[in-house]
Amino acid sequence: MHHDRSFTSDNISPISPEILEAILNANHGTQASYGNDEWSRQLTQAAQAVFECELEFIPVSTGTAANALALSGMLEPFECILCHESAHLVTDECGAIPFYSAGSPFLLMKGTDGKLTPNEIRSTVERALSLGIHHSKPKVLSIAQANEWGRVYTLDELKALCDCAHELGLWVHMDGARFGNALERLHVSPHAMSRGVGVDVLSLGATKNGAMAAEAVVSFLPERAQAFGYRRKRAGLLHSKMRYLAAQWLGYFQHDHWRHNAARANQLAARLEAGLKQLPQVRLLMPVEANEIFVEFSNALATQLRALGFDFYDWPAPAESTAPLWRLVTRFDQSEAAIDAFLQAVSQFQNG
Amino acid sequence: MHHDRSFTSDNISPISPEILEAILNANHGTQASYGNDEWSRQLTQAAQAVFECELEFIPVSTGTAANALALSGMLEPFECILCHESAHLVTDECGAIPFYSAGSPFLLMKGTDGKLTPNEIRSTVERALSLGIHHSKPKVLSIAQANEWGRVYTLDELKALCDCAHELGLWVHMDGARFGNALERLHVSPHAMSRGVGVDVLSLGATKNGAMAAEAVVSFLPERAQAFGYRRKRAGLLHSKMRYLAAQWLGYFQHDHWRHNAARANQLAARLEAGLKQLPQVRLLMPVEANEIFVEFSNALATQLRALGFDFYDWPAPAESTAPLWRLVTRFDQSEAAIDAFLQAVSQFQNG
Amino acid sequence: MHHDRSFTSDNISPISPEILEAILNANHGTQASYGNDEWSRQLTQAAQAVFECELEFIPVSTGTAANALALSGMLEPFECILCHESAHLVTDECGAIPFYSAGSPFLLMKGTDGKLTPNEIRSTVERALSLGIHHSKPKVLSIAQANEWGRVYTLDELKALCDCAHELGLWVHMDGARFGNALERLHVSPHAMSRGVGVDVLSLGATKNGAMAAEAVVSFLPERAQAFGYRRKRAGLLHSKMRYLAAQWLGYFQHDHWRHNAARANQLAARLEAGLKQLPQVRLLMPVEANEIFVEFSNALATQLRALGFDFYDWPAPAESTAPLWRLVTRFDQSEAAIDAFLQAVSQFQNG
Amino acid sequence: MHHDRSFTSDNISPISPEILEAILNANHGTQASYGNDEWSRQLTQAAQAVFECELEFIPVSTGTAANALALSGMLEPFECILCHESAHLVTDECGAIPFYSAGSPFLLMKGTDGKLTPNEIRSTVERALSLGIHHSKPKVLSIAQANEWGRVYTLDELKALCDCAHELGLWVHMDGARFGNALERLHVSPHAMSRGVGVDVLSLGATKNGAMAAEAVVSFLPERAQAFGYRRKRAGLLHSKMRYLAAQWLGYFQHDHWRHNAARANQLAARLEAGLKQLPQVRLLMPVEANEIFVEFSNALATQLRALGFDFYDWPAPAESTAPLWRLVTRFDQSEAAIDAFLQAVSQFQNG
Repeated sequence: MHHDRSFTSDNISPISPEILEAILNANHGTQASYGNDEWSRQLTQAAQAVFECELEFIPVSTGTAANALALSGMLEPFECILCHESAHLVTDECGAIPFYSAGSPFLLMKGTDGKLTPNEIRSTVERALSLGIHHSKPKVLSIAQANEWGRVYTLDELKALCDCAHELGLWVHMDGARFGNALERLHVSPHAMSRGVGVDVLSLGATKNGAMAAEAVVSFLPERAQAFGYRRKRAGLLHSKMRYLAAQWLGYFQHDHWRHNAARANQLAARLEAGLKQLPQVRLLMPVEANEIFVEFSNALATQLRALGFDFYDWPAPAESTAPLWRLVTRFDQSEAAIDAFLQAVSQFQNG
Repeated sequence: MHHDRSFTSDNISPISPEILEAILNANHGTQASYGNDEWSRQLTQAAQAVFECELEFIPVSTGTAANALALSGMLEPFECILCHESAHLVTDECGAIPFYSAGSPFLLMKGTDGKLTPNEIRSTVERALSLGIHHSKPKVLSIAQANEWGRVYTLDELKALCDCAHELGLWVHMDGARFGNALERLHVSPHAMSRGVGVDVLSLGATKNGAMAAEAVVSFLPERAQAFGYRRKRAGLLHSKMRYLAAQWLGYFQHDHWRHNAARANQLAARLEAGLKQLPQVRLLMPVEANEIFVEFSNALATQLRALGFDFYDWPAPAESTAPLWRLVTRFDQSEAAIDAFLQAVSQFQNG
Repeated sequence: MHHDRSFTSDNISPISPEILEAILNANHGTQASYGNDEWSRQLTQAAQAVFECELEFIPVSTGTAANALALSGMLEPFECILCHESAHLVTDECGAIPFYSAGSPFLLMKGTDGKLTPNEIRSTVERALSLGIHHSKPKVLSIAQANEWGRVYTLDELKALCDCAHELGLWVHMDGARFGNALERLHVSPHAMSRGVGVDVLSLGATKNGAMAAEAVVSFLPERAQAFGYRRKRAGLLHSKMRYLAAQWLGYFQHDHWRHNAARANQLAARLEAGLKQLPQVRLLMPVEANEIFVEFSNALATQLRALGFDFYDWPAPAESTAPLWRLVTRFDQSEAAIDAFLQAVSQFQNG
Repeated sequence: MHHDRSFTSDNISPISPEILEAILNANHGTQASYGNDEWSRQLTQAAQAVFECELEFIPVSTGTAANALALSGMLEPFECILCHESAHLVTDECGAIPFYSAGSPFLLMKGTDGKLTPNEIRSTVERALSLGIHHSKPKVLSIAQANEWGRVYTLDELKALCDCAHELGLWVHMDGARFGNALERLHVSPHAMSRGVGVDVLSLGATKNGAMAAEAVVSFLPERAQAFGYRRKRAGLLHSKMRYLAAQWLGYFQHDHWRHNAARANQLAARLEAGLKQLPQVRLLMPVEANEIFVEFSNALATQLRALGFDFYDWPAPAESTAPLWRLVTRFDQSEAAIDAFLQAVSQFQNG
């Protein structure tokens, strides 16, 4: 396999050296289990330093677990979640959210490029509330940053969404599987893009950005601390040797390692976007703001690229489109050479 | 901390060198995610070689997850689980089983030393069935090997339990969090102590025996393969970088590493038992058959031992007893010297 | 209140005399509880005579319970339900389906007037299956007859839907809250509109058509009988004095009472439709095929009609429309005079 | 069948004339659905008059539904319920409680004759809390009045239990399936035996005491009103024609009808107890305090009694006993003659 030439996903990367070193450093002697270890204690402090506020930091192994734990801890089962119909938690998590929440349904919205607006939120909530007990009660707004189409909300947009949600009595959950990439896009602090704009609970991902298997629920709601603690255990998510999860996060945060990794992936994506814009063989579906590129090109070109060792996913096209659509994801551990080789390969393709 | 002197649990150990090496070996280049990697493919073969039969091997990160996934995959929610009232899944998993199974209750039994008998199983099932739809339908017998009191069923006992269960239309689940320790006690093959006696689904643990975070559902029921696959995903248990879970298991099985680790822990426990039997300051509650020792001694002795750097858990005494009860667990990474120092410390204690 | 002038719903009617008499007939002496009574035994026979085939007939008290019991009994929790986005079970049952099914999500479709087509079903299933374990597995197609817009599928349409579903490995559930009204529309037998076209499990309603509180799951899947029986009990739906539920159904079926009631409601709806078609003050949104009429008219007219004692629900308009939309429902216990009075009132209204 | 001679259960009775009349009175004209009817409005007032305080009165059709709705509305899914191991909700409701509560387990206690004590509650809670997140968090104490062995707590006993629970941070649920019988035993007011001693939520039964199908959740916790309302709907328990449920309750409460019925059943039980005490052929297992009699006698006598048209249930004997045990239940609609005939039949039996 041409490791460098695969654009299928950012979860195909190995552990970054810095995070691996943190794991190795934790591997000495005994440590109390279930989060009562030295590394877990350090992590709480480190996370509060990174986010510049009080919080609960609850590490788990997968992004689906983080989303399901975060949302179920904010809901009674008769309450529901507002989110975009393209949300990862709706389309790619095999019903984990209604499983964890004992049946909380989704209230789906349809904003452009996976982005929600206060107006759509308000009218959706009002419609649901008008049905009284015949409809689940809206309780949480979930937004993804970066979202499923690689778009990044501005701080103003985020603030408007959070303000609208809070006015309507909703809590705000942010799916931050690619939080680092969004952060580097906006060049702001973690606090500014989360608690600062009003996010109540964040699912924070590290696995796509260099970790082995490290995701977390970051809760800014002290009143739900107990709910997250008990629910993590009963979902089978509490590791006994918690030090290895904590260590990954410590390595991730140290010396801004995570921001460097995310910046690297974003730069590669920008380089790819800039090149593709020049090429008539392809059409970019939307602006590239993080490390995902959605691009239309022919099946013939796809075949040829794959023959050269490149890889990427075919992606379901939006309803209005008919051209084949592909998703490319760039990674912290790729080279500029891989990008340039891809562009070169596309440019040499002649249809017909 | 005196690492060597802690007998609190076998999950306080670090990763064993052999398993760590397997993780490091997997950390090169890209790998397809969600179990489509090279190491996961090897693991399926390795596991079938270890158990000498067809099986589904489904790695997860925690023992609670393994138990909950295994049991929920065997049940409709109106069916129930027979097990001992001291079962870990009843007392220490925060309701994970009824959560995963959407409310399947436990039917509890009370056999001596945590061991079940065919007679108690038969009468419990008959009583439940006599209530028709007013009582959940018995469907799975869950037994622990080694069990929660460190006892190990003989192969004959296991076969009698499985035969009885199958006659009654039940499947058999084995909680093998310390399967390796039981295996070394009986000096039999993995197949002999699982599929050979009739176990249908096994929760197999590696974390207490040297892994970082590796447990698995081992299913001998091909008809439930799909259930386990989908349920793992929707529970948030499917890692994206699955290669690191698979690698732990490969290192665990290679060159009988797991059996060596388990044998080591058992030998230390036997050495401890032999020594304690000579000492009037303590009373062993039951025979030591794996790596757990349950022993009564005074609070004064406990205090003195802890002052010397030893540690262990206080344990809820059985109903008929009043003396303080303690649990000591030995580990693969401990020294004989630690055992001897403990015995020495006890022997020098004078009540008065 | 002008009882006759309310068009809000068909569940505002009293018990019809025939059904009340059946209840009174059952009210003598003792009867074994939980369905072991004489009336329940008769009901099984009566239902098999009505549907001309083997079936399980499982009475419950509400339509939401019937739908949730029916669907949950057909699903493992990692499987999902295909249905129209306007389906009652999605919009008006407060999450009952994912509650009963332990989190099975809906896969929503958008066909015109609430009607589904084989093509949309096929492409939706294929898309979901292409995601493997990342998406819940499609298992049940649920259709409503009559549907939420008062439309009635022809037998050919039903057969095409069922054939398509079965080819794709799905079971078919029919929400028959207004099954009787659809039956009278098509002038066919109950068998022809259910098992005959391929329906596997039917939610059959009587409450909107003259009963006190009688709905049922009618299962043509003998292999699921146990699932429905146990699930009814654990959901708290099994009455102890079951004779009164059974009696309602016996009165409902006797002498085609249900068909007479449904025919009456349909005729009143047809009379209303015919009249409204002549009036420029209103616009019928779609053909009237059962006992629901969806009609656009001004808020001013609505106010005036309500001042005259008429009543009806405002209804959320489809996305493409802006005019105020109203739903009118006719009932077995209404008079032609009420219809004519309504038409008269509309005709006299002058906008401006 | 000899209706009068059946002692199997109090749910084999027909509807009492007073309650039937209330149903008939409600059967005129249209009424708004889903609880917005005139009878439901009256019921709220009537219930507050009966219980002499503010409350939510939430009618449902079955006792299992009332218990499951009551308990699930008081719990987060990681919290658990303390109750007696013989509790109806543990043994006879097919897992309804963990279904409704999304997996809340039971913490079982073993007090004599099904009665709990503050000491056992306190030690059970302390043990569970000592396990932290590894054990579900104790949240609700559930007691039955009268309990499953027909015993009735005194007001002092109830107050001690409630005080103990509240000190420990628990809410108190009372299963009042036979609340009326207990009330008549103690000759106290409904308030005195519920809110007055500290009960937080009551499951109140009417079906065993003359209603057709009427149970209710009576909540004294205003902060949970929304939870009960939404949960009733999503469980499929909210009738559309709610007037008929409300009417049963109105007839039940009117002119102390319920107390007369319960007093009648209790008197018959007392008459039976007094007679049996004189007879050497039988042994009463415990004092009769409501309308259930648990009595040991030989299988030969049972056979002979059944040949005479009497009926009763065989009952699982407590662990320490070996004699066949039978449960007899008296009903409001039975005659003294039936009691006397039973006594006569027993007295004539000669073992040999």
